[in-house]
Amino acid sequence: MIIVMKASATKEEIDKVEHKLCELGFSTHPIFGEVKTVIGAIGDKRLLNTHSISTMPGVESLVPIMKPYKLAGRELRHVPTIVEVGDIKIGGDEVVVIAGPCAIENEEIFIETALKVKEAGAKILRGGAFKPRTSPYAFQGLEEDGLKIMAAGREATGMKIVTEVVDTRDVELVASYVDIIQIGARNMQNFRLLHEVGMTKKPVLLKRGLSATIEEWLMASEYIMAAGNPNIILCERGIRTYETATRNTIDLSAIPVVKESSHLPIIVDPSHATGTWKYVPALSKGAVATGADGLIIEVHSDPAAALCDGPQSLRPSKFAQLMKELEPVARAVGRSL
Amino acid sequence: MIIVMKASATKEEIDKVEHKLCELGFSTHPIFGEVKTVIGAIGDKRLLNTHSISTMPGVESLVPIMKPYKLAGRELRHVPTIVEVGDIKIGGDEVVVIAGPCAIENEEIFIETALKVKEAGAKILRGGAFKPRTSPYAFQGLEEDGLKIMAAGREATGMKIVTEVVDTRDVELVASYVDIIQIGARNMQNFRLLHEVGMTKKPVLLKRGLSATIEEWLMASEYIMAAGNPNIILCERGIRTYETATRNTIDLSAIPVVKESSHLPIIVDPSHATGTWKYVPALSKGAVATGADGLIIEVHSDPAAALCDGPQSLRPSKFAQLMKELEPVARAVGRSL
Amino acid sequence: MIIVMKASATKEEIDKVEHKLCELGFSTHPIFGEVKTVIGAIGDKRLLNTHSISTMPGVESLVPIMKPYKLAGRELRHVPTIVEVGDIKIGGDEVVVIAGPCAIENEEIFIETALKVKEAGAKILRGGAFKPRTSPYAFQGLEEDGLKIMAAGREATGMKIVTEVVDTRDVELVASYVDIIQIGARNMQNFRLLHEVGMTKKPVLLKRGLSATIEEWLMASEYIMAAGNPNIILCERGIRTYETATRNTIDLSAIPVVKESSHLPIIVDPSHATGTWKYVPALSKGAVATGADGLIIEVHSDPAAALCDGPQSLRPSKFAQLMKELEPVARAVGRSL
Amino acid sequence: MIIVMKASATKEEIDKVEHKLCELGFSTHPIFGEVKTVIGAIGDKRLLNTHSISTMPGVESLVPIMKPYKLAGRELRHVPTIVEVGDIKIGGDEVVVIAGPCAIENEEIFIETALKVKEAGAKILRGGAFKPRTSPYAFQGLEEDGLKIMAAGREATGMKIVTEVVDTRDVELVASYVDIIQIGARNMQNFRLLHEVGMTKKPVLLKRGLSATIEEWLMASEYIMAAGNPNIILCERGIRTYETATRNTIDLSAIPVVKESSHLPIIVDPSHATGTWKYVPALSKGAVATGADGLIIEVHSDPAAALCDGPQSLRPSKFAQLMKELEPVARAVGRSL
Repeated sequence: MIIVMKASATKEEIDKVEHKLCELGFSTHPIFGEVKTVIGAIGDKRLLNTHSISTMPGVESLVPIMKPYKLAGRELRHVPTIVEVGDIKIGGDEVVVIAGPCAIENEEIFIETALKVKEAGAKILRGGAFKPRTSPYAFQGLEEDGLKIMAAGREATGMKIVTEVVDTRDVELVASYVDIIQIGARNMQNFRLLHEVGMTKKPVLLKRGLSATIEEWLMASEYIMAAGNPNIILCERGIRTYETATRNTIDLSAIPVVKESSHLPIIVDPSHATGTWKYVPALSKGAVATGADGLIIEVHSDPAAALCDGPQSLRPSKFAQLMKELEPVARAVGRSL
Repeated sequence: MIIVMKASATKEEIDKVEHKLCELGFSTHPIFGEVKTVIGAIGDKRLLNTHSISTMPGVESLVPIMKPYKLAGRELRHVPTIVEVGDIKIGGDEVVVIAGPCAIENEEIFIETALKVKEAGAKILRGGAFKPRTSPYAFQGLEEDGLKIMAAGREATGMKIVTEVVDTRDVELVASYVDIIQIGARNMQNFRLLHEVGMTKKPVLLKRGLSATIEEWLMASEYIMAAGNPNIILCERGIRTYETATRNTIDLSAIPVVKESSHLPIIVDPSHATGTWKYVPALSKGAVATGADGLIIEVHSDPAAALCDGPQSLRPSKFAQLMKELEPVARAVGRSL
Repeated sequence: MIIVMKASATKEEIDKVEHKLCELGFSTHPIFGEVKTVIGAIGDKRLLNTHSISTMPGVESLVPIMKPYKLAGRELRHVPTIVEVGDIKIGGDEVVVIAGPCAIENEEIFIETALKVKEAGAKILRGGAFKPRTSPYAFQGLEEDGLKIMAAGREATGMKIVTEVVDTRDVELVASYVDIIQIGARNMQNFRLLHEVGMTKKPVLLKRGLSATIEEWLMASEYIMAAGNPNIILCERGIRTYETATRNTIDLSAIPVVKESSHLPIIVDPSHATGTWKYVPALSKGAVATGADGLIIEVHSDPAAALCDGPQSLRPSKFAQLMKELEPVARAVGRSL
Repeated sequence: MIIVMKASATKEEIDKVEHKLCELGFSTHPIFGEVKTVIGAIGDKRLLNTHSISTMPGVESLVPIMKPYKLAGRELRHVPTIVEVGDIKIGGDEVVVIAGPCAIENEEIFIETALKVKEAGAKILRGGAFKPRTSPYAFQGLEEDGLKIMAAGREATGMKIVTEVVDTRDVELVASYVDIIQIGARNMQNFRLLHEVGMTKKPVLLKRGLSATIEEWLMASEYIMAAGNPNIILCERGIRTYETATRNTIDLSAIPVVKESSHLPIIVDPSHATGTWKYVPALSKGAVATGADGLIIEVHSDPAAALCDGPQSLRPSKFAQLMKELEPVARAVGRSL
C-alpha cells in the first residue's frame, strides 16, 4: 500500500502517519519527492480495518498495491478452475452452452423447448422459477412449482439444470432441486445471499451486476468462496451505459480481463446483454471467439407468448442454426462445442 | 401505448398486430405515415402480460405513454406525501436532518455522537447494524447488538432512529427496534426485501440504486406501496458514472424530477454521494437549495477510528458548523431547518 | 412523430397543438386515451425547425418515429456500401486489416514496421502525423513531415495509408497525401471538420466519439454525406463507462446494430478500445466473429520506445501471430482475411 | 511516480526498470513487499515522453503522484483566479449571471431579450452565432451576421457579450466581436481550437465535455494556459450518464472538487444540463448554494418560436422571478448577486 501525502503536509504529519502505520503492524518506507512525500507500507491491508489512515491530517490518498480478492485472484492461485457439473466441465476445452426460456410457464412448453435445445447441442437447461421483475405487476415466476417443472425437464432430457435464487430463505429449497444456482445481476451485491449460496457446495453461476466493475464482481465471488464454495462460474451479461440501442452494453473485454485476473471460468449471456434476439447470433460468435468458456442463451418455442423477455428469445430453429454456426468459430480458437 | 411498425411491414403484418391488440382488449387507432405505420392502442399495459407484441413480425418498437408506476406517481395522486415519524414530518416545510455514524461500533461512542448531533439540530439518528460491505473481510456490523445500541441511543436522546436491513429474514427484527427501515442502494432491486418491508407499516428510507434510473427507483417504491406500505422517503445518494474524483456523482437534478413525477418526499445523502467529508458541506447546501426535504449525513466523533467510511464522516464540530450554515439556505428557499 | 399530451392537458391546449401542427404542414391524428391524449403527426420532422411544439402548454413529450439520419440509414437505402480504396474493398467479403504505429516518429522505424505488417497480411498502413493528446506537454506529432514519411511508407510497400486530421485548416493538405482521412473520437462532433472532409471525395474513417450513441455517430456520418462524400468507414473504438480495467469499454454490439440501421461498413480498433496490447488478440478475434468488416491495430517495432500509446501496441511478431490466428476465425464466419 | 511490478516479476526485470529510470533522470527508491515490489521514482513525469516504462517486462502499472495539470492546478498556485471582463469580476464575491437565447435569430428579438435580462440583473449576454448541431439539417447559426447582432445588443444594453467559436479559422473574427469566447462541450478536446483561443488574450468560457473527467477538463484549460492565456472560466453543463429523465446529469460536486484542485472560477449552465426549463430554477439555486461563481441561463422571449433549444429556455418573466429568488440564496452563502 502507498500513502500519498499532500504537497502541504508537514514533517510532523508525515511522522504521525508513519508512526501509526508501524503501530498497526506495517513496515514503512517513506520516499521524499520534490513536492510530495509518499510512504510505502508493507503488510496486510486488513490491518487497516481498525483505523482509517486516509482521514489523518496531511494524507491525500491511499493506493492499494495488492488486489482485494485473494481466493478469486490469480496472484495466489495460477491454475484455471474447472467447475464440474456432473460430467460437464466448465472452464475446460469445451465451450458449454446453456439454453432455455427466461421464465418457466408450464411443463409442456418447457419440456418441448428442452428437448429441442438438447438436440441442437445445449448441455444445460436454464429456466426461471423466481423472477426478479422491475414491476410488481409483472409475472414473478411459478416458484416451487417452477422448480418441479425444471426437475421434470431434467428427467426428460438428462440435461443439468440451472435457476436463479432471489431470497436467502429459498437457497436450501432451490439447492435441493437444481444442479447450478444462479445469482442474478440485481443480487450481485446481495452479500447475505452470496454468503448463503457459499454455504452450499452447489456450483454458482454469478452474473455481473448491472454496473459492477470487474473488481467488484470478483469481490462478490470472493464472498462465496470465503464461505466455503469454490465452484463459481462468472457470467458477463452486459453493463449499463448511456447507449440505448441495446438493453445493456455487452462487455466482451471482460473475458480477457477476467482470464488475466482470476482463475474462474467465464461465460456470456448475449440475450440479456442485448435484449434483442436479432443481435444474439453475432454476439454469441463474438463471445466464443474472444475466449468465453460458455454461453447462456434464451430460447422459447413461442417468443410472442412468453411471459417474460420474449423479445430477446430465439426460436428453437434459430438456436439450432446458431449452434451450427458456432461450431467452426469454437474450432477456430482451438475449442470444441 | 404506441406500436411502431417497421418501414418494411406488410399490410398483413399490420392487420395481425391490430387484430391481436383487439383480442387482448385494447382499442386500436392506426395511423398510416408516408414510410411507417404506427398503431395507437388504448388500454391497460398490463393486458400485455400474457403476450409479447414486440416480437410479432413487422413490429419495430413499443412506446409506452403512461408511466409504469401508478401508486408512486403524480398521474393519479397530486398531493405530496408527508411521511410522519412520531411528530417529525418529512416532506413538509421543515428540512429534516438525519445524522450519525456509518456503522455502530460501541454504545459509548454512539451515544456521544448522538448527543452531539442532536444538540446541533439533527432530528433523527442513523447508524448501521447490518453493513453491506464490498469485501467479505471488512467489518460487517454488530447485527442485533447494534440494534440494541441504537435503541439505547434513542432512549438517551429522544431522537428517532433509522437503520438498514439487508436480509428478508431480519425485517421483523429490525422493524421491532427502529423507527425507519432503510433499504440500501445495493438492495434497491432486491424485490423480495422490498416486498417484505412493504408488509410492515414502518416508514422506509429507500436509497437510489448505484445505477438506477429515476423510473426504476420509483418502481422500487411501487413494490413497497403495492405491498401495502405508503410511507416511503426516497434518498438520492449519488449514481455511478465514469468520473473518479468523487465516489459517486451526486444527481441533484433528481430532486426536481422526483417532485414532478411523484408525490413522495426526497432527501439527499451527500456523504455517500461524494465519499469525502470535505465536499459534504457544499453539497448539503446545494441539496437544500435545490429543494431536498432532508439530508442524511455521516458524523463520527473520531473518523480516523471509524470501522467503516471514516473518510466521508464529519466530526461533530464540523457538523454543528454546517447546521448553522444550512439554516439561512433553508430559509432562502422558504423552508425551516 | 407522436406528440404526447399531459394527463392534465385541456381540450383547448390539445386543439392548439393540433392547429399548430396543421399550420406547419403536418397531417394530424389525435387519439384520446383514458388518461392522456396523443397526436400522431405525419410529415417531415424538419418542418419543426421553425417551431418548438414541445414548449407549447399541455405538451409532455415528442416521440420521433423516423430515424434522424437519412443518407446513412437503411430506411431509404438497402444495399450495403462498399468503400473502395484503390483495389481494396471495405465492406465486402474480405476482412481488411489496417496496422501501424500510433504516432509517426521517424522514417526508418515507420518503414521497418510497415514492411513487417504488410508481410503479415495488413492491407492498409496507419500512422499519426497530427496527434490529439490530452496533455499539451505530450508529443503532438510531426505534422507535414509525418505525412511525408507516410507517403514514403506507401512508396516502399505499395500499401494504402490512413492518418488523422484534427484541424479544418489541414484537411486539404492531409487529403493531398493520404488515401483515407481519419476523424478521431474527440472530433466526432467537430461538425465543421466533418463538413470539410465531406467536401473532399476521399474515404473517411470515422471513429465513434468517446461517449457517442450509435445514433449520434450515424448523424456525424450524415454530416459528411450531406456535404457530398458517401465514402465512410465507421470505426468502433470503445466507449467511456465506469469500468477502469480497460481504457474504454469495447462495444461489439455496435456491429450488429450498425449493420441493421445503416448500410455503411464498420471496423473495430481493439488497441484504443482496451489500451493494453495483451487484450488485443482476443478482442480482434471477437470483433471479426461478430461481423466487423475490418480491424485497425497498433503495431510498433519497439513499444517501449514509442512516443505515444506504447502500452497498447503489439510487436510485429505478435501481430503476425495474431494474423495467423485471425484467418480461421474469418473463415468460420464466411469471410476471408 | 510509483512503478508497481507484477508478483511474478524477476529480480532482473526489477533491476532493468530501475536502471532505465535512472538513465531517464529519475532517482529511484524500490520497496520490496511480501508479494510485489514497487519502485518510487522521483523526477518530472515528462522525462517519460521518450520512453514507455509500462511496456517493460515485469511492470504491472504506473501510479502518478503529481497532478498532470501544472498551470491550472492548486499545487503550484494557491490564490483563486478572478477573471475580469471589463469591470465584471468572475470568481470574486459576486455571483455573475450570464443570460440570453441559445441561438441568435434576429436583432429585434435579441435586443428585446437582452434588455429584459439586463433589467432582471444579468451582467453578461449570451447568444449563439455558430451553432454545433447534432443534425446537419438543423439551424447552424447566423455566423458573422449573428456576431453583428450581438455587438448591437452590447451597444443597446452596455452588457458584455459571450459566444461560442467552433472552428480555428473563426477565432480571430469572433475575438474581434465579443468579450468572452466560449468553447463548447463538443470541442473541449479540440486541442487546436484550445491552442488558438489560448493565443488570444480574451477570457475563455470553457465548457466541460459531454463525458469529460474533471482532470481532462483541467487539462483542456492547461492547453489554453500553456498557449499564454490565463483568463479561463470553467463551466459545468452536465455530463452524460445512463439517466434519461434529464438531457444530461448536472454534476454539482464538480464545484467543490474544482475549488480544491484548481484556482480557476467555475460557473454552471443548468439549461443545457437539464434540457428542460422547469428544472432550471431549482438547480440554479442549488448551484449557487454549492458555491458556483456564476450561472449561464438560456432565456428566450418566445421559446416556442426558438430555432434552437426552445424547451430549455426560460421566458423573461420566469427569469426575472428566478433572479429574485436567487438573491437570498447567494446571500445565505455569503455572496452577492
